Amino acid sequence: MFERQDISEMAGYVPGAQPDGPVVAKLNTNENPFPPAPAVIAALRVIEADALRRYPDPMARGFRQAAAALHGVTPEHVIATNGGDELLRLAFTTFLEPGGVVGIAEPGYSLYPVLAAIHGCRLCSVPLAADWAPAAGIADAWNAAGARLGLLVNPQAPSGRLDPVAVLAEVARGFRGVLLVDEAYVDFVDPVLGHDSLSLVRTLPNVLLLRTMSKGYSLAGLRFAYGVGAPDLIAPMLTKTKDSYNVDAVSQRLAETALRHRDHAAAGWALVRDERARLARELGARGFDCLASQTNFLLTTVPGLAAGGAQALYRGLSARGVFVRWFDQERLRDRLRITIGTPAENDALLSAIDELMRPA
Amino acid sequence: MFERQDISEMAGYVPGAQPDGPVVAKLNTNENPFPPAPAVIAALRVIEADALRRYPDPMARGFRQAAAALHGVTPEHVIATNGGDELLRLAFTTFLEPGGVVGIAEPGYSLYPVLAAIHGCRLCSVPLAADWAPAAGIADAWNAAGARLGLLVNPQAPSGRLDPVAVLAEVARGFRGVLLVDEAYVDFVDPVLGHDSLSLVRTLPNVLLLRTMSKGYSLAGLRFAYGVGAPDLIAPMLTKTKDSYNVDAVSQRLAETALRHRDHAAAGWALVRDERARLARELGARGFDCLASQTNFLLTTVPGLAAGGAQALYRGLSARGVFVRWFDQERLRDRLRITIGTPAENDALLSAIDELMRPA
Repeated sequence: MFERQDISEMAGYVPGAQPDGPVVAKLNTNENPFPPAPAVIAALRVIEADALRRYPDPMARGFRQAAAALHGVTPEHVIATNGGDELLRLAFTTFLEPGGVVGIAEPGYSLYPVLAAIHGCRLCSVPLAADWAPAAGIADAWNAAGARLGLLVNPQAPSGRLDPVAVLAEVARGFRGVLLVDEAYVDFVDPVLGHDSLSLVRTLPNVLLLRTMSKGYSLAGLRFAYGVGAPDLIAPMLTKTKDSYNVDAVSQRLAETALRHRDHAAAGWALVRDERARLARELGARGFDCLASQTNFLLTTVPGLAAGGAQALYRGLSARGVFVRWFDQERLRDRLRITIGTPAENDALLSAIDELMRPA
Repeated sequence: MFERQDISEMAGYVPGAQPDGPVVAKLNTNENPFPPAPAVIAALRVIEADALRRYPDPMARGFRQAAAALHGVTPEHVIATNGGDELLRLAFTTFLEPGGVVGIAEPGYSLYPVLAAIHGCRLCSVPLAADWAPAAGIADAWNAAGARLGLLVNPQAPSGRLDPVAVLAEVARGFRGVLLVDEAYVDFVDPVLGHDSLSLVRTLPNVLLLRTMSKGYSLAGLRFAYGVGAPDLIAPMLTKTKDSYNVDAVSQRLAETALRHRDHAAAGWALVRDERARLARELGARGFDCLASQTNFLLTTVPGLAAGGAQALYRGLSARGVFVRWFDQERLRDRLRITIGTPAENDALLSAIDELMRPA
């Protein structure tokens, strides 16, 4: 055995299954149900051989300028990364000493404890409150443990709950380390809420936002995300800890195009919100209890009628080609996480549930 | 300041400049001068919107099967990575404890000391022999320092020298850690030499080969490389330490296509070898001394005639739009590293040298 002892002993992250068999509705990995903007496909079609042959811009300047313009910051506030995973990893590498402490809230994104194990970091995990809000005093708990990096997902995964900017600002102000807010799902927040997380970056030195093109822009296959934060947070990642050429030429071009055609994506977000409301209503009518969600998924309890509970329903749905996510984890075992699909996919889910829950 | 003290104090890696001004010949970053196979471009043109929308295969199975078939190993011997940088980083993360020791030979790839700094590792650097061969006893020196990972480039950068498989096998057998052989340039080795590094993987448990699509397959813009080694070396990187979805869907598809159309690339390798021989002859006729190279670049001394030496010539060439690489480093200050270009680019280089070295 050549690998580190702790790597040998740890369990790896398990991504949502990519089913091999027939798929009726794939609602398990929170992909956007609608295609990316036609302009993105058009940009792909005209990529020239030389863009493949040459090294890409190691600084992704075109994309960073577009993102800066969109968010009202400078390119020095932005770093482009090979998916959100890379930004999370860079935050660990850059802000945490080996053996350091990272603060999280649980239930949260199941990748975080895996990243901590890889980096030999200890976790300071603070349970979410009963209503799924970050616990009062979470910053104090992280500080007391000596955490230099704290991770919150907002809107949350897997609950779907949106914490207001004021709550995040309070955590950031109380926390002595860097607060990374994983906003993978922020594009699906209802605009009427006026949720403006960029204000955190403009006013606080220790907030790093994670945005991704995977969900909102229907580009999960491309692996492209970005971080927004104070230039002092961005610079060491951009010039020191990231791989030299971390994002490829094709992805840079397509991600920039997607951002410049945000209106197309935004029309899809509205459709997702409509379907989210409809699916929650339909599930509610069947005795499921859905948490209020500002994401493209619902976390829902499974009514007592379903024999075997959530896990049995998850298996029954899988057998019918309808894939959702079940977590063998505290507070989640009686629930399913269901990605919002197209109207047809959501109908297929409801039909499969009706079949499975029909009295024998 | 939120970043780690040692990150704050370290210098980042400096990639070869991507010139902004007019370019006559870009011979500074070892890109392949010839375009990728037409089949690769054709594969790019037909990528469907759904391949962008969905998460990619986290295990890159199609590519790994193609690489395994090419090299006579199993897919379990192969990991696909986001450029060679990622495999190097994964080797640090997987095989070295924080604060551990990594063995290198110098002069070598200037990224290695940077990676060591990022990971808080100490270097055990063993100077290359006078003829640029790895020093006799390098494995003993690494063992004595407690190194668990050793890095060699072969064919070497920046010298261009090819070390025979027998030499590498001896180092690997004597070394108690993992020997990573960075074969970024191996495609340019003359086939008459019968260099078969895969035999190392078939016979030794601790050899990890790094291959890249960047150079040999003209796909530097794509960021796609792979590692080949015993399954026990590959598994912890594949299932634990790599980012979950580390290579995107477009790159997977194109890299697999490139590998399946290796004949196109191989025709280019032959042309590069022809130009390598011609350029070495032409430079030799001008008083430059080129080391024998099995790569797509030449490391050459600059004759005394050139006022100011290699650095002045580097600057003079840059001013004329001819970009080569100069390293401010022991054994390299009197030399230039010149990528083999197209015949026209190489002619442009020679003309610019003739102009700059003409007696005033």
